[in-house]
Formats: sequence, structure tokens, C-alpha cells
Amino acid sequence: MKLWDKGLSIDKKIEKFTVGNDRELDMFLAKYDLIASKAHAKMLGKVGILNENEVEEIIKELQKLESQVEQGTFSIEEEFEDVHSKIEWELTKSLGDTGKKIHTARSRNDQVLVAMQLYFKDNLSQIYSKTENLIDVLLKLAEEHKEKVLPGYTHLQVAMPSSFGLWFSAYAELLIDDLYLLNAGLRIVDQNPLGSAAGYGSSFPIDREFTTKELGFSALKYNVVAAQMSRGKSERTVTSNIASLSNTLSRFAMDICLYMSQNFDFITFPDELTTGSSIMPHKKNPDVFELIRGKCNKLQAIANEMILITNNLPSGYHRDFQLIKENSIYAVENIKEILEVFTHSISQIIVKEVDLTDEKYKYLFTVDSINDLVMQGKSFREAYKEIGEQVQTGSYKPGVSIEHTHTGSKDNLALEEIQKKKQFARNF
Amino acid sequence: MKLWDKGLSIDKKIEKFTVGNDRELDMFLAKYDLIASKAHAKMLGKVGILNENEVEEIIKELQKLESQVEQGTFSIEEEFEDVHSKIEWELTKSLGDTGKKIHTARSRNDQVLVAMQLYFKDNLSQIYSKTENLIDVLLKLAEEHKEKVLPGYTHLQVAMPSSFGLWFSAYAELLIDDLYLLNAGLRIVDQNPLGSAAGYGSSFPIDREFTTKELGFSALKYNVVAAQMSRGKSERTVTSNIASLSNTLSRFAMDICLYMSQNFDFITFPDELTTGSSIMPHKKNPDVFELIRGKCNKLQAIANEMILITNNLPSGYHRDFQLIKENSIYAVENIKEILEVFTHSISQIIVKEVDLTDEKYKYLFTVDSINDLVMQGKSFREAYKEIGEQVQTGSYKPGVSIEHTHTGSKDNLALEEIQKKKQFARNF
Amino acid sequence: MKLWDKGLSIDKKIEKFTVGNDRELDMFLAKYDLIASKAHAKMLGKVGILNENEVEEIIKELQKLESQVEQGTFSIEEEFEDVHSKIEWELTKSLGDTGKKIHTARSRNDQVLVAMQLYFKDNLSQIYSKTENLIDVLLKLAEEHKEKVLPGYTHLQVAMPSSFGLWFSAYAELLIDDLYLLNAGLRIVDQNPLGSAAGYGSSFPIDREFTTKELGFSALKYNVVAAQMSRGKSERTVTSNIASLSNTLSRFAMDICLYMSQNFDFITFPDELTTGSSIMPHKKNPDVFELIRGKCNKLQAIANEMILITNNLPSGYHRDFQLIKENSIYAVENIKEILEVFTHSISQIIVKEVDLTDEKYKYLFTVDSINDLVMQGKSFREAYKEIGEQVQTGSYKPGVSIEHTHTGSKDNLALEEIQKKKQFARNF
Amino acid sequence: MKLWDKGLSIDKKIEKFTVGNDRELDMFLAKYDLIASKAHAKMLGKVGILNENEVEEIIKELQKLESQVEQGTFSIEEEFEDVHSKIEWELTKSLGDTGKKIHTARSRNDQVLVAMQLYFKDNLSQIYSKTENLIDVLLKLAEEHKEKVLPGYTHLQVAMPSSFGLWFSAYAELLIDDLYLLNAGLRIVDQNPLGSAAGYGSSFPIDREFTTKELGFSALKYNVVAAQMSRGKSERTVTSNIASLSNTLSRFAMDICLYMSQNFDFITFPDELTTGSSIMPHKKNPDVFELIRGKCNKLQAIANEMILITNNLPSGYHRDFQLIKENSIYAVENIKEILEVFTHSISQIIVKEVDLTDEKYKYLFTVDSINDLVMQGKSFREAYKEIGEQVQTGSYKPGVSIEHTHTGSKDNLALEEIQKKKQFARNF
Repeated sequence: MKLWDKGLSIDKKIEKFTVGNDRELDMFLAKYDLIASKAHAKMLGKVGILNENEVEEIIKELQKLESQVEQGTFSIEEEFEDVHSKIEWELTKSLGDTGKKIHTARSRNDQVLVAMQLYFKDNLSQIYSKTENLIDVLLKLAEEHKEKVLPGYTHLQVAMPSSFGLWFSAYAELLIDDLYLLNAGLRIVDQNPLGSAAGYGSSFPIDREFTTKELGFSALKYNVVAAQMSRGKSERTVTSNIASLSNTLSRFAMDICLYMSQNFDFITFPDELTTGSSIMPHKKNPDVFELIRGKCNKLQAIANEMILITNNLPSGYHRDFQLIKENSIYAVENIKEILEVFTHSISQIIVKEVDLTDEKYKYLFTVDSINDLVMQGKSFREAYKEIGEQVQTGSYKPGVSIEHTHTGSKDNLALEEIQKKKQFARNF
Repeated sequence: MKLWDKGLSIDKKIEKFTVGNDRELDMFLAKYDLIASKAHAKMLGKVGILNENEVEEIIKELQKLESQVEQGTFSIEEEFEDVHSKIEWELTKSLGDTGKKIHTARSRNDQVLVAMQLYFKDNLSQIYSKTENLIDVLLKLAEEHKEKVLPGYTHLQVAMPSSFGLWFSAYAELLIDDLYLLNAGLRIVDQNPLGSAAGYGSSFPIDREFTTKELGFSALKYNVVAAQMSRGKSERTVTSNIASLSNTLSRFAMDICLYMSQNFDFITFPDELTTGSSIMPHKKNPDVFELIRGKCNKLQAIANEMILITNNLPSGYHRDFQLIKENSIYAVENIKEILEVFTHSISQIIVKEVDLTDEKYKYLFTVDSINDLVMQGKSFREAYKEIGEQVQTGSYKPGVSIEHTHTGSKDNLALEEIQKKKQFARNF
Repeated sequence: MKLWDKGLSIDKKIEKFTVGNDRELDMFLAKYDLIASKAHAKMLGKVGILNENEVEEIIKELQKLESQVEQGTFSIEEEFEDVHSKIEWELTKSLGDTGKKIHTARSRNDQVLVAMQLYFKDNLSQIYSKTENLIDVLLKLAEEHKEKVLPGYTHLQVAMPSSFGLWFSAYAELLIDDLYLLNAGLRIVDQNPLGSAAGYGSSFPIDREFTTKELGFSALKYNVVAAQMSRGKSERTVTSNIASLSNTLSRFAMDICLYMSQNFDFITFPDELTTGSSIMPHKKNPDVFELIRGKCNKLQAIANEMILITNNLPSGYHRDFQLIKENSIYAVENIKEILEVFTHSISQIIVKEVDLTDEKYKYLFTVDSINDLVMQGKSFREAYKEIGEQVQTGSYKPGVSIEHTHTGSKDNLALEEIQKKKQFARNF
Repeated sequence: MKLWDKGLSIDKKIEKFTVGNDRELDMFLAKYDLIASKAHAKMLGKVGILNENEVEEIIKELQKLESQVEQGTFSIEEEFEDVHSKIEWELTKSLGDTGKKIHTARSRNDQVLVAMQLYFKDNLSQIYSKTENLIDVLLKLAEEHKEKVLPGYTHLQVAMPSSFGLWFSAYAELLIDDLYLLNAGLRIVDQNPLGSAAGYGSSFPIDREFTTKELGFSALKYNVVAAQMSRGKSERTVTSNIASLSNTLSRFAMDICLYMSQNFDFITFPDELTTGSSIMPHKKNPDVFELIRGKCNKLQAIANEMILITNNLPSGYHRDFQLIKENSIYAVENIKEILEVFTHSISQIIVKEVDLTDEKYKYLFTVDSINDLVMQGKSFREAYKEIGEQVQTGSYKPGVSIEHTHTGSKDNLALEEIQKKKQFARNF
């Protein structure tokens, strides 16, 4: 976002154009590059490219940098192109020639690849847990409000009786589908790409099984060309997983904004979660949920952007891939924030009493009325006709809701089963 | 595609506008609606809404229609809006009032939902198997051509030595990632939505666990609102799974088209798989792979289309959902065809001998040369400098390839491990 | 859509895979290919490649085919790959060697290009007129209902007074923006590409200025490579223009569906334009507008699809371009239908009386109340505070609407100015 | 991009979540908000809401801030939500109650709207000029290299003779199409939205014709609801215009990257415009053009993102619209930078001599050979057959290129006509 400065010489402009915002983004990757560098150093020791002493020195130095990262004192100064050159510089400054040796048998591309995989793996796990947490909150809200009725709509027209319990737990159960996709995403990023070098491996006798174990990856991405092509595949998968989750949250936020309208008036939120207007003193706007909706829609666009950038490129690295680093990190960091804000805010929801005897909800129970006749022996088509005529002639008398007994219906929410499904997903 | 007729009255136009091409599409769903209707009838019998005799009659009638579908004699005439009304009409014609009873405790929306889930479940399995099959073909090609060299490119610039073995098996291993996503998709569609009626359940004492078992679903989508919202979620998931697979195939096709260019000249195909030109008698164009690329790119667009149609719609059914039926079926049927054509065509590939002593490949072994010096004791940075100077001054003598020994490199392809990974994915 | 047949030999499958649905689509292009062929023949005559007699014979034959197209008797039988081979076959059948000469100095690609440009030019003009027509209908509705109030919303919260007049004419004025884009699209497709042959021109002394004039194009696409690359550019432009128009219509349709909900209850439509439910006898669903919304959203996805297919392809023709023919024709034919259905349906709208004294609209006039105080001399911030406190303490008394006098406000709609703007756009 | 801090209280998190990066973005808008505020103040004076003295004071103060912006000393401190509150605060600090009066008869939303329109109008003009400039550079390159041959490809297969002149001027002429779209975009943003207040106008007797003239807008967006809905429409239009331009540049960049590959070896660039590799000392990678390609592809994704965010939202402002400000500014600033970098870099291109007698280009002249026979009297089909047989049997002797004489062909580039077309576009 700082690319548009004025008054720069064309050379400076081109330098900025190519460096982009790597320094800023790489702060998210520093931790993972250090972990991967330690594993790489140990492996070089194991295969005899470094001696024991060199390995020890390098590890010690990398650990120092790790604690800087932890303490928030690590930084990437402007003279460095990215986190990788910064770390190599630090090693060389402290260890001289030994420091330089860390780059043996790996390339810059290799480093970015493994750091991104570790970053994705760690973060998809966090996103997974935050989603589980939101599911728990929703199931609790469903239990709490299970007896409060809500009109159900189809085509935005009043249709059949629903309930707050059904509404909350519907989104809980839909989020479990998103967990399934996150699981697949985790599998895909949980593969070690280290050792592909520039994408075609190398003549060094490196031990990729060793780094796989050392880095805690469940699997090795064997083929070095495939390992290099993970760049792109991982980003597309992760952003597509996040898009699916975002879609669920976005639709939920739409419901919330609609239900807060005075024309529905089903729910509201404490003042801290609503916003006023610069000219209308009565306004209480659901900005938080509108922004959740908008941001989730933006996240849904990113998966398409990833495809547009990488599509129709022949195999082998291209610099274009640098650009997908930015937006995949953006997607990851944003969805974590959205999940936190959503979970916090939804738990503050104030559920209102909906008066179903209001004229506009008059026909909410026509299906129950029909079914009643059916259970008394009429065929469905006959019963439908009879109630239909009552509606037509204005003689229909709104019934009261009959209990819905079947699994998953408003009076039998199956919340425990949904909870179990969620738990089962984790072991999948 | 028949919507644009001329000379129609406005009423006819509107009727066509709303019916769309349901009749044509529903031919893909007939089989599944019949299966679901049988299960629904049995369940109605079990809970006492139908008597034993009625169930038996209905099942027999549905089986008759099933064999029509199998023999290709089933059709949906123009007087029917969709497959569901056609089937109900057939039942009523044969069974009178008994036939009408099949619609008890379910809605049209319910029927579409369950038929789509069954269709997706069945077809994702087929897509899964076809992908496995393609992986096997690629691994075989990799084994067969493992000793044939290929220049490796980065930035489309000659970079390092690669091989046909690496190239074929890279795509095999990448396709396994797509299997992981298909697995997640299968989980999501393998849930029974039947019983949600218009999206809010009903007052009938239906037994949803029964139909779940009867239909062979692994799980019940408990919450009826969630079940209704599967419409959209399933389509987005399935098309997004297909998009991921398409992305892999599309990039592979791009490689193929590029490598067939006279400027690369790495591969060719038998005449049956290439096309001539209406004005250039020498042309041998890779139309099949260009169309695979283009069609796969189109399939990647569909996931975005699904989002655009369903996005920002509040919960509850909207007619817009009818439109995603068309494109998700289109995606499913197309990817199956593409997988077949790709698998057939790639197995006909003719691999050429690439002359790496050609001037343009001169620097292909600089990294091997550097590594050689490193293994002899130089630091990587020094060795890099030395070879770099040779390149600069023109004194660099192209080396010959050193064997690459590490796992997944050109001389150690780990094909068996990749095969095992594929097999493991199936049990996941 | 007929690609997924079963039981085919692999050769047949591949043939179908490559031919696609060209025959069906080309029915939309027959008319334009014939026009272009006539111009090409005349030009060949002018430069001496055909003699006068040959030209005359060919023109006569092409005119025969033109009248077949007009009368609906023209067809493309299964033995022909596309409309171009069918027409050439007809010429050869009737004229022998003379017929074959029509292909001199042009290629298949050339023919598709010019036919598509003519098709787009003709159809964008039709879309333009249909949009103007819809604008007129909306301005008429605005005039008719200009005194009927409507609550205005921001954030879906009741905000300030609006009116049906404002609502209808807002969309009228927004559609004028879409006319501007259509104008640009028209400019882009109104350029003659004929003569680019396979994309690099030819050694024949053809006269491209002649065909430009003959075909009624305003400009020649001079550079033959640029002419060939119009394929893609034209499709992207046309579908992007249509997407913009679709976006306007889609948002309008969303308003309509929302305002028909019992919770808003601002409008309704005659029964012919609404749909019932298979289980709820009281339903009156706005299916037509939901389908307009959904279809418009689908059309918005097509521009992205065009990019995905053509992106990152180096210059020169690729077979992938065949695939964008289908969807650009789909977009053109659909938007014409949507405009017709929308215009017809909106003119049937039934506007209801909205009772603004209802409790939920209580604060609709707070801004008017504030402004009243300001006009009496208070600063805006003070007045805002005063009314805000009344709202807070419950002492606020809903005012009545003050007349809004400024241009474009609810009581001064400027409908004539908007009409003039529309007329001015046409001359732009 | 600062949203992902850790250790924040939930309230702080929500505040950050809602404020977003407005302060940073609004630096691009400060200039335009000040211009619009001056016009608004004068108008308030004209209609008697402010007295002459107040207007004068406010104008003077706003001019002070304008010179701060010009000198780069203006800033938006963290205590301000956005540029608008900052400016109002400055006015109030200096002028007390008079300063507060500037907010009379306008809302925050109104201010953003008009500032964005002015920003877009100014910047689309700049983008237009930069595109013209690039066209000029390309036409100059075409003239300079017009006699240098280049093989022309279709399907990436060697097809027919082309030239550097054709290649450069093809993109020049295609960019003129993008100018047409920019013209339409300019029309759409060149409309004054000021006065719509919160989207429904106000009861103040404001003079919108006055501010239209004062701000230099060509037209007034009359309808206040339409004016409010410009938010979204403008962003979609501008990003869609930019996407079209990006598509042209992206394809050009793809050609460049491909032609720099050793396998084509048609062009190269000075070292300053290429990049080396951390492990391959011989590499000279076209990073600048790869990043242009990637960034242009990203810009093509933004138009779709805009749709995803705003789609299916009913009319009236929603907070989601805040999110499209960021990406439309991003698109505008990036395309300007890309155009500068592209223009600079392409003018440094080094064109190589292509040896068309190389074996791989053997069939480049088959069409010329055929046409030669045709000009000697054979029918095209016969000539095609004869040359085809020569190719088949290996007896074909590569001809030399015949001069192509027709307009727009390799030996008759029509560069002046293209230049005229460009000039004509400006007056359109």
C-alpha cells in the first residue's frame, strides 16, 4: 500500500514495485522460517554437510532470533528484501562463514514454501478451534432460546413456524461442514515441501524424511516438482476453505441485519455493538454484523483471485506467486479476527418476543392445520384444498402450533447429536 | 438454452422463464428421486401414515419407473414442470388416491434436496475413482519415462535439469491433494436432508433415522433449517472440489500445449488427438488439451458463480436456488468427461528425446556444478561466485548431470510412496 | 449439454468433446456469417480474385440461404462441424468450383470473428433500446406514484422519508449509467476484424476498407493481430456491459422481493406473476423477481468466467476461445429476455398504501425535525442533540414530513431532466 | 492490515474492526473532501443558511488545510475516525460554532460519495493519459522495428509470418478499446452526488445545480436515491474499466515472459530490469513483467470482489460499502503505477534477430506458398492440397515471405491510422 509514492526515480519505483510489501508480510512468517531453518541445519549435520559444532552454533543463533520474535523485538529493516535475507545476515554477522552455510541445499523459494506450509498448518488449526468454539456458543444459545418462536420464511414470505433454537443450531450444524473442509485443508498443508530447492531438487544428499519428522509434518511431499507446485495449491485450498466458512458467517450476518430491522424486530444488541448516525439521532445500526458480512464476502472473492493469478501458468516458479502470499495471509488473519468478533458479538444477542398472533403472521400455521386434517384421515391433497379454500375466502382461523416431534424439528432440536457430530469431526 | 424463442405471448414467455430447463436437467435426477421416494414411502409405512398395502403398491410402481430409467425409456413430457410432478402423476394414474399420498410429509423442495444429495454422493465417488485412475496412468508413465531428461524452468527461463519421470509423477501427487478435498466433499453430501419439508420440518411424526439408513447416508443432517440450507452449501462444496481438480488439470494441459510448441518440442501426440487448420496444411494443433484447459478454467469459474447467486440471501428457500442446480450438474458431468478424455489422451503421449547439449540449455547444470564444488569443500557462496564468474566471462563448461539421490528427486522418484499415499487417501 | 452420453467409443467421445455445441450456437450466427460472406465475395470481386459472374452467383446463393434463415428453415445438420462449413458446402453444391472460392483470403477464425462482431453490434443495440424502454416505464411509474410515501432505510433500519416516486426513478437514472457502458461496448464491437485470416493477415491484396463500408462498421480494426485478439476482448466487454446492467436489475429485484414480504408489505403483484407452494396454500411467492435476481447474478459471473478462460494465454488464437462463444451468446440472449420480463412485470406492480404512523416508523422524521430547528436558527449539532434527547427519553413526537424542495428530492423528482439525460446518452 | 494485533481487549478489537484502515485510505481523499467542502459552504451561503462572513471564514480555513495537503504536512491522527471528522474538528477548533455549521444539510455518507467521485474523475483522467502515452511508445516501437520478422503462432504452434511491428502496434490498437471504456467510466463518475444526505435528500433548500457547477461536474445525479447508489456503481465501473486495461497489459506481459524464454529468444531487457537467482548464477528473470502480469490479474479479480460485496443488498446504505473504498483506491493507485513501470520498461526492450531459416520455422510460409499458387490461378482448395502433400512427403521448400500489402498487415501497419483512432477517442 506504500507503492504509490511520488517523486521517486524510476529505478526506485521499479525496486519498490518488485519488493512489494514483503517485509511487512514476512513478520507473520519469521517464526516459521526459524523453525524450518533449525530443522534444515540439523539435517545438514546429519548428512555430513555441516559438522556438529557448526550445527550447534547455528541452532543457538536461531534460537536467539526465535526469542526476539516471541518478545516482539524482531524486525526486518529496510535494507533487507525479506525475512530470509535478514535471518541469513544475522547468522553471518554472528558466525561468519558458518552462518553462510545455512543456505546450502536450499533456495529462497524452498524457504518461502516451507514457512508458508508451517504458517498455514498452525493457523488452520487455530481457525478450526475458533470455529468449534463458535459452534459451542451457538448450541448454547439454541438451548437457551429453544422455546422462543420465530416465523419461518421461504421466498421472504411468511411460511411456517420456526424457532430461535432452530435458527441458532442450524448455523452450528452448517459450520460442521466447514470443519470437514478445514480438515481436508489441514491434510494438504501438512506435507513437507522442504528440499525442492528451486523446484527440481538438488544433487546434495539431503534427508527429507528427517526434516519431515523434525518439523512435525505428517507426510512428505515427495516429488520435488509437486512440492514446488504446492505454492499456489496450498493458497488456493486455504482461501477456499476460508471462503466456505465465510459464506456461512456471511449468510448468518445477513439474517441478523434483517432481523434487527424494525420491520422484523426479532433481535437486538447492546449499544456497544451498534453504531449511531451523524444526522439521525435515533439510529442503532448493526455495523459490526454488516462489516462481518462485507468482510466475509471479500474473503469469498480471494479464492477466485488466487485462481486468476496462477491460472494458465506453466509449471515451474513464476514471480507472480509472490502476490498470492499477501492475500492468503490477509485471508487467514482476517477470518481469525472475524471469528473472534462474531463469537463475542453473537453471545451478546438480545432475543425479542415475537407476537405470532399479529395479522401478518396469520397464515403461519396453515401447514400444521393441513397436517392435522391428514392425521385425522384426509389425503394431503384434499386437506390442502380445504385449507386453501378457507384462506381464499378469509374464513381461515390461525391455529396454534402443533408440537413437531421428529428429529431436528423445532421441538426436538437434537442439540446433543449435533455436538457429537462436531466432536466426531475432530477425530476424522 | 431454449429460452430465447420469438413470437411468444408474454404469458408463455414468463412460464418459460420460470420453468427454465428443469425437464432436461431432471433426467439426471430421476434415478435418485425414485430411490428417495421408495425410502419415504417405506418410512410413511413404518410410522403408520401409509398402510402396508399402500407401501407395497407404491414401491412396486416406483420400481417400474426405475427400470424405465435404467432402460432409457423414461421421459419427462412437456406438460410436466419437473421430474417430481411427472413421477407423482404416474403414481396417481396407476394407484389413484394411494399415489397422491406419497407427497405426505414432504415438499417439492425436500425432494430436490435429497435427490441432489444422492446425485452428488454417487457422482463424487465416480469422480474420485476416475481421478485415482488418472493417477495410476501418470505413475505408470513416470516409471516408463523416468530416465528421459527434460529441462526444468523457473520464470520460463532454463533453470535446472528435470525429467519426464518428475513431470508425470508431480501431477500424480498433486492430484492426491484433490482427493483429500473430494473426501471432504463426500462427507458433506453424505448427510440425509429428507424431512426438512419446506425448510422448517413438519408436525408429522416422521422417522428421519429410518430414511437415513434406508438411503445409505452416513449421517443425518439433523436441524431442518440446516438441512434446507444444504441447498447451496452442497453445490458450492461440490463445484469448489471440482474447481480444485480442474485447476490441476488445467495447468497440466498448459504444460502440454507449451511443450508441443516447436520451440520446445518435448512431446507430441498421434494424429487422432490433434487437429489441422483450414488454411495451414502443416498444422497439428493440440485442440483436445486446449479444450481441456478451457473447460477446466470454466469449471473454476462456476464456484464463484454459485457464490454470486446465493450470497447475501437471508436463510430460507428462494427461487434463485433453482439456478444452481443447472451449473452444479454441468460441472459434475463435465469433469467426468474431462477426466476420461484426459486419461485416454495422456496415455497416448509420445515423449521426444530432448538434446540437452543444445546451446540454449547450456547453463542447465550450473547448480550441479556449484554443488560439486561445495561437496569438495567450498562454501556455497564462494562456489556460487566462482561459477557465476565463469558464466559471465563465457568460460563456463556445461557439466553433465550428477545423480540426484534424495527422495523425490529426478533419480529417486519415490513412485511407490506416492502410490501408497493415494491408497491411504481412500481410507481416510 | 449433450456431452455426457454413455456407451460411446472413445473416438466418438473425443469428437463430441471438440465439436461441443457449435451447431446449436451457430444458429444465432448464421445470419451474420451470410452478411459477411456477401461482403467478402464482393470484395474479392473488386480486387480481381473473383470475376463479376462468380460474385453474382455467390451473392445470389447466399441470399437464398438468407431467406431460409429468415423463414426459419435453415438448419445445420449433424454432418457439419459448424455454420461455416454448412454454408460453404451449400455454395459448393450449387456452384461447384466457384463456391469453393469464397474461402480465398479468409480463415475459419476470421469468419467467426466477423460474425461475432456483427452479432454483438446488432444485439447491443437491441439491449440498448430495451433498456431505454424500461427507463421510460420506470419514469412513468415514478410520475404515477410520486405522492406515495415509503420509509427510507439505511443499514436496513428505518431512516428517513422516501417515496415510490424516488424509488422508481432512482433505478431509471441508474440504468442511464448502464447505457453509457453499452455505448462504449458498441464502439468496441463496431470495428471490422475481417481480413486478419489466421491472425496474421495474408499475402492477398484484399481491400479491408471496402468490407468495412460494406458491412456498415464505423471503423476498421487495422492491425490484424489486434483484429484476431478482438476475440476475447469483445466477449469480455459485452459480458461486462451486461453484468453492469444485470447488477442494477438484480438489486432492484432484491428490493422488490423484500418489499413484498409481509414484514414490509409495500407492494404486490397480480396472481399471474406470483407462484404458490406445493404444501402452503396461502403462498404468493415472487418467483419471477427471484429468478430475475438469480439470473442477473449468474450473468454477473460470466464476465469473470471470460477472464478465467482467456487469462495468461499468449497472443495468437487458442482453441479455448471457442468456449467463450457459448457464454457470451448465453449472456446476450438472456439479458434480452430478462429485460422483457422485467419491463412487463414491473408495469404490473401494485403499490400499497404504507401507514407511516405505525409505531415502527416513529422516528422516520427525526432529521426533518432537526432541520426544522436549524432553519429556526439552531446549529445543526445543537438541534441534533435536542431531538436525540427526546428520542432517548421517549418524549419525541413524530412530526409530519416537511416538503423537500431541492432537485432530486422526494417532492421534486426532476423526472424530465432524467428523461433528457437518457435522450442525451443516445447521441453520445 | 493492522487488524491482527494481539493482546487487545475485545472492545478495542471491535473498534479496530469497525474503523478499519480508513485513516490511511482517507489520505487519498483529503484533497477532494476539501474541494467539496468549499463548494458546499459557498452553496450554504448562496441559499442563506450561512451568512457571507461565515462562508468566507470557512473557505479560508479550508484553503489552509488544502495547502497542508499539497505540502504533505496534513495528517489524520489516531483520535479521528476518518478525514471528515478531522477536517470538521479543525474548522471547529479555529472557528467555533461557525465551523460546526459546515455539516448542515449533508451527511458523512454524502461526503464520502462526493469525495470518491472527484477522486475517481481526477484519476481516471490520469489513467487515460498514461494509457495514451503507452500507446505512443508502442507505436514508436512498431515503427522502429517494423521490418523485423517474428514467427506468428496459433495454438502455440508455428503458423504464419508476423513482425515486431505487428506485435507492438497490436497492443497499441487494443489499448484504444480500453480508452473507450475509460470514457464511459469518466461519464459515470462525472456526476455530482452531493445533496443526497443519508440517501433520501433533506428538507433544506439546497442548490444542487450550484455545487455541480462549482465542482466542475458535467452532470448532476438528480435522484437522491440514485446518487446514494452511485456508491457501488462507481466503484464497480471504475474497477471494471481498470480490469479491462489490466487484461490487455497482462496478456502483453505474458507474451514478453514467453518471448524471453531461451526457447523463443526473441527479446531481452537490460540487466536493471531483470533479476538473478539465489542459487542459479546464470539467471536473468523477467520479474518486472511477471509482477505486472500478476498484479494485472489481481486487478481483474477486484471487479468480481466489488460485486460479491454489494450483491443482493437492498437499496439504501449499508456499512459493507466501506469495504469497497479500500479496493477501488487500491486498483486506481496500482494501475497508475503499473502503467508507469510498463511504459518505462517496454521502452527499454531489446529486440533480437530471429532466424526464420531455422528448421523449426520451416513451415512458416506454407500459406504464402498456397496463396502464391492461388494468385497464379489455382483454386484455394487445390493449392492447399498441393502444398499439403509437399509437407506430408517432406518435399516442401520453405519459401520466402511475399509482401503483405493489405491494410494492417505486416508490411502495411497503418500506424498513422491507429494514432488517429487514438486521438479521435479523446474527443468522443
